[in-house]
Amino acid sequence: MATILGQNQYGKAENRVVKITRDGDTHHIKDLNVSVALSGDMDDVHYSGSNANVLPTDTTKNTVYAFAKEYGIESAEQFGIHLARWFVNSQEPIQKARIRIEEYSWSRIATSDANSKFIGSDEVNHSFVREGMETRVTQITYDGKNWEVISGLKDLTVMNSTNSEFWGYVKDKYTTLKEAYDRILATQVSARWRFAWSDDEQRMPNWEKSYAETRKHMLQAFAETYSLSLQQTLYQMGSRIINHRSEIDEVRFSLPNKHHFLVDLEPFGLKNDNEVYFAADRPYGLIEATVLRDGVDARIPVDMTNL
Amino acid sequence: MATILGQNQYGKAENRVVKITRDGDTHHIKDLNVSVALSGDMDDVHYSGSNANVLPTDTTKNTVYAFAKEYGIESAEQFGIHLARWFVNSQEPIQKARIRIEEYSWSRIATSDANSKFIGSDEVNHSFVREGMETRVTQITYDGKNWEVISGLKDLTVMNSTNSEFWGYVKDKYTTLKEAYDRILATQVSARWRFAWSDDEQRMPNWEKSYAETRKHMLQAFAETYSLSLQQTLYQMGSRIINHRSEIDEVRFSLPNKHHFLVDLEPFGLKNDNEVYFAADRPYGLIEATVLRDGVDARIPVDMTNL
Amino acid sequence: MATILGQNQYGKAENRVVKITRDGDTHHIKDLNVSVALSGDMDDVHYSGSNANVLPTDTTKNTVYAFAKEYGIESAEQFGIHLARWFVNSQEPIQKARIRIEEYSWSRIATSDANSKFIGSDEVNHSFVREGMETRVTQITYDGKNWEVISGLKDLTVMNSTNSEFWGYVKDKYTTLKEAYDRILATQVSARWRFAWSDDEQRMPNWEKSYAETRKHMLQAFAETYSLSLQQTLYQMGSRIINHRSEIDEVRFSLPNKHHFLVDLEPFGLKNDNEVYFAADRPYGLIEATVLRDGVDARIPVDMTNL
Amino acid sequence: MATILGQNQYGKAENRVVKITRDGDTHHIKDLNVSVALSGDMDDVHYSGSNANVLPTDTTKNTVYAFAKEYGIESAEQFGIHLARWFVNSQEPIQKARIRIEEYSWSRIATSDANSKFIGSDEVNHSFVREGMETRVTQITYDGKNWEVISGLKDLTVMNSTNSEFWGYVKDKYTTLKEAYDRILATQVSARWRFAWSDDEQRMPNWEKSYAETRKHMLQAFAETYSLSLQQTLYQMGSRIINHRSEIDEVRFSLPNKHHFLVDLEPFGLKNDNEVYFAADRPYGLIEATVLRDGVDARIPVDMTNL
Repeated sequence: MATILGQNQYGKAENRVVKITRDGDTHHIKDLNVSVALSGDMDDVHYSGSNANVLPTDTTKNTVYAFAKEYGIESAEQFGIHLARWFVNSQEPIQKARIRIEEYSWSRIATSDANSKFIGSDEVNHSFVREGMETRVTQITYDGKNWEVISGLKDLTVMNSTNSEFWGYVKDKYTTLKEAYDRILATQVSARWRFAWSDDEQRMPNWEKSYAETRKHMLQAFAETYSLSLQQTLYQMGSRIINHRSEIDEVRFSLPNKHHFLVDLEPFGLKNDNEVYFAADRPYGLIEATVLRDGVDARIPVDMTNL
Repeated sequence: MATILGQNQYGKAENRVVKITRDGDTHHIKDLNVSVALSGDMDDVHYSGSNANVLPTDTTKNTVYAFAKEYGIESAEQFGIHLARWFVNSQEPIQKARIRIEEYSWSRIATSDANSKFIGSDEVNHSFVREGMETRVTQITYDGKNWEVISGLKDLTVMNSTNSEFWGYVKDKYTTLKEAYDRILATQVSARWRFAWSDDEQRMPNWEKSYAETRKHMLQAFAETYSLSLQQTLYQMGSRIINHRSEIDEVRFSLPNKHHFLVDLEPFGLKNDNEVYFAADRPYGLIEATVLRDGVDARIPVDMTNL
Repeated sequence: MATILGQNQYGKAENRVVKITRDGDTHHIKDLNVSVALSGDMDDVHYSGSNANVLPTDTTKNTVYAFAKEYGIESAEQFGIHLARWFVNSQEPIQKARIRIEEYSWSRIATSDANSKFIGSDEVNHSFVREGMETRVTQITYDGKNWEVISGLKDLTVMNSTNSEFWGYVKDKYTTLKEAYDRILATQVSARWRFAWSDDEQRMPNWEKSYAETRKHMLQAFAETYSLSLQQTLYQMGSRIINHRSEIDEVRFSLPNKHHFLVDLEPFGLKNDNEVYFAADRPYGLIEATVLRDGVDARIPVDMTNL
Repeated sequence: MATILGQNQYGKAENRVVKITRDGDTHHIKDLNVSVALSGDMDDVHYSGSNANVLPTDTTKNTVYAFAKEYGIESAEQFGIHLARWFVNSQEPIQKARIRIEEYSWSRIATSDANSKFIGSDEVNHSFVREGMETRVTQITYDGKNWEVISGLKDLTVMNSTNSEFWGYVKDKYTTLKEAYDRILATQVSARWRFAWSDDEQRMPNWEKSYAETRKHMLQAFAETYSLSLQQTLYQMGSRIINHRSEIDEVRFSLPNKHHFLVDLEPFGLKNDNEVYFAADRPYGLIEATVLRDGVDARIPVDMTNL
């Protein structure tokens, strides 16, 4: 045979599970999109179509829903860990499991006093509105021995309306850009951060708190950096996380430079004093980089922030 | 000629304008997507290609940006009114202008005390994060005499995790659905409401306050209605608005029933006590209706909430 | 009660049905997305939540699948007619049915001679590749007496690389556009055409042939019109259809002007002789109009081509 | 400093360039979306914001348009090679360039004889209609010495309406799936193949012919494989390419199993003899694997087919 099989994986992608937990009359909601990818001793199914080692993707879907009942969903990370451990430990041919999860956040709807006659006190805590465009993500990988947890977010759009410059760059024969001393800096953050935790013997991070704090530091670094380039802002965002969150060793960003071009109003006899901008779609600058704790190895793949 | 021209309109669609206003060191942002549609004496350009009556769509785009400077953007509605009035009044052949605007909302990023050494006090008020998936919309129509303003929102996703039932319905030979006495009710609201204001002689509504209050009443009605059908919830949302907001005469909704199916866990020996749901994509129930102030005419088109 | 119910409709949207028909060893495929909207005596469900008149949306979904078996899918139009008739005739409270259908087209994969040893002659006719970005659409409306059939397509992208000009237009104080004597004209056609057929007594059109011919005439008119404005091209496309297809009385188009801007290469010492273009996303000109057979009434709603 | 910079790259993404070439009266079109990513000596811009080594992303955009004029666009691959070579060779700090290109295909509109009076013979060859949902892609990487070219396609949707089975799989306590002996097999192919060519001294492949042939072999293998699992079909598609195209050493696929579920029509007294299917959206099986020429190293990243 002149061809051979290389890396392969399979499973059910995008299982949409919503879990309601009742704490007295107060309901809590977890809303996830779970994708399972399994690999191991799978040569036969590729070469001959024998499914003797294949746990159906339908079964991996069922497992997601059953585990939501059996273990609950404490956090996306903890839920992914339960799933990955099960697949690797329960099936001989499966040597590695990778669970990817997207989480959508919901906040409570404030109810009205004026209409309190319509509602009992037990009814105010079961109504939710979906928050933000931003999606929280995590990826859990387990090979029977070591864990790798990479969490993050995507589609978090931020803007500084000043405190951004861009000048002093290389000019070649195709350069026409004018230097800017006060520009809008806007981006749609896609970030992934890798946890140091890799072993069941180690103390597991508090996944929910870690996410909230990491997001906060990232946003603050974006807001507080006086920017001479988007690369500089990216590095500040990454190092702020590494410096404040000891559980995180590595961060990678894809930051599209969402260009806001100052509109030329002179033809109409108007002066545009950094007031009116055209928000462009394409093309856009795309700045990508990894920021690492000194001494650790980089493991987040180059394109992970583009998924 | 066996064929004739019917209704027609033209203009530049999706002009993305961002306006920064400086109030001392505090920046304010308005982020709009403006679409212009003009109609009037346009037979010639269709029949023969003569552009003698055609103000270029490029000019309508320029006007949007110039007006952002000349008038500012107090609200999407007020901005659309300036534009519509200009096109109809300044060009003889243009008899009607319809301005559609989407508005994206931004909130401020809270900055950190710990990092206050990096920032001056003037720097905390220029950093923003894009809010929500929800988009505010408005449509302004002007024919040189009368105004019609229809505002609303789309992509506002809400959920009640209880207080929803569905039973007592018609059963025919294709009916297999089981009655439900406690189900999740979730929808992605698309709503449009029409203002009574139609004349320059009348007092103009406070557009910003009206939007905030209308949205609040709609959300509260959704949360506080014990629902026997999504139609009932829709009607409560609409009548709550009409009853509380005297400036609004008519509301129309498209409410997709975003089905959350209880997963059957019995094959795995588990009981699903309204805990674990599968969030389905398609198909979905689609409930659409208009709610009117008694005595007024309905004018919002049937499919406007599907745009 | 200060509020009343206006126009309303409900049903199951986006039922994805694929029908395989076997003609000996040759398989045929119909791939539809069917949306049902019913209206009638539905006050109670809105006012009080009583479902006594409500056929569940789940039942309308079941009916779509059952009818695919019972009637087959000869064409999207014929299938919609079966469904609309059933809902109105079988349920007393339902007075009107509107069926919207999207159809996705597939062509056959050509198989190889060299590999004929792998396949029997019965195997070559069951393999398909999805065609085009273009989607065929239809809307059937029935009130128990009269039929209205509006068919069309969307997302058909076309381009003329020459034979398009734009000049002689109105210039006001916001006009900066330069006249063009040779430009690219590109658009993404959304079209809807209304059939004269409205009564069971009349002879029904051949829906499949009508679609193929209408599409052909529209494309040819686009290609063959020397264009002085997109409005002129639109009118030619519409009148070509009306003049060639007696079964069609009215056509409406939304034609976004997908701008291709000539890139200024002079800063690099290069001449751009209508060779290198930047394909822009937003904003875009949007040209919309109805073309009618002389003497008939216009009935296609203004925004139908934007759905 | 406790943090350091890891892998990083920057450039302008999604430059939409359309190139018209005139061969007498016949026009040819190339329609690309070009993304540039450069890396090299970029520590300073991240650490301090110094742009002294930074060629602006705006300049990389200009270069794309200028090169479309200077070199033409013979193929996406050849165009990417010109660009990558330029960036690495012309700028000292840039040590590596990665060019990603999407290509959209167009076919000619057939014009009508009946309307030949409207057109001259020079006019028939400048009208195009955009083909297919499928997008051709390529990625060119150059480090000043070696080339890596990975081409492919995405969004090519295919279906076999028979000759697919799935049985004999592992059953655990969460397994409920019934075995299938005749099912629809449908997928939306994302494929990437890596060329052996890596050196300017070697003879360059004929990129256009290679693409057409590779696509053909892939489609035929899909159509002609009697499938016991999607993994088996995938392997056949990959090995068919490797065996027929000596210029290609490695292929990777992501094949979502686009489930078509047989609808249960028994409640309606109907038999569904593999005729009526529900086309599901989510979740879906996802089968991913690399197929290699024996003896070569695998280099296509695991998630490249998910971009």
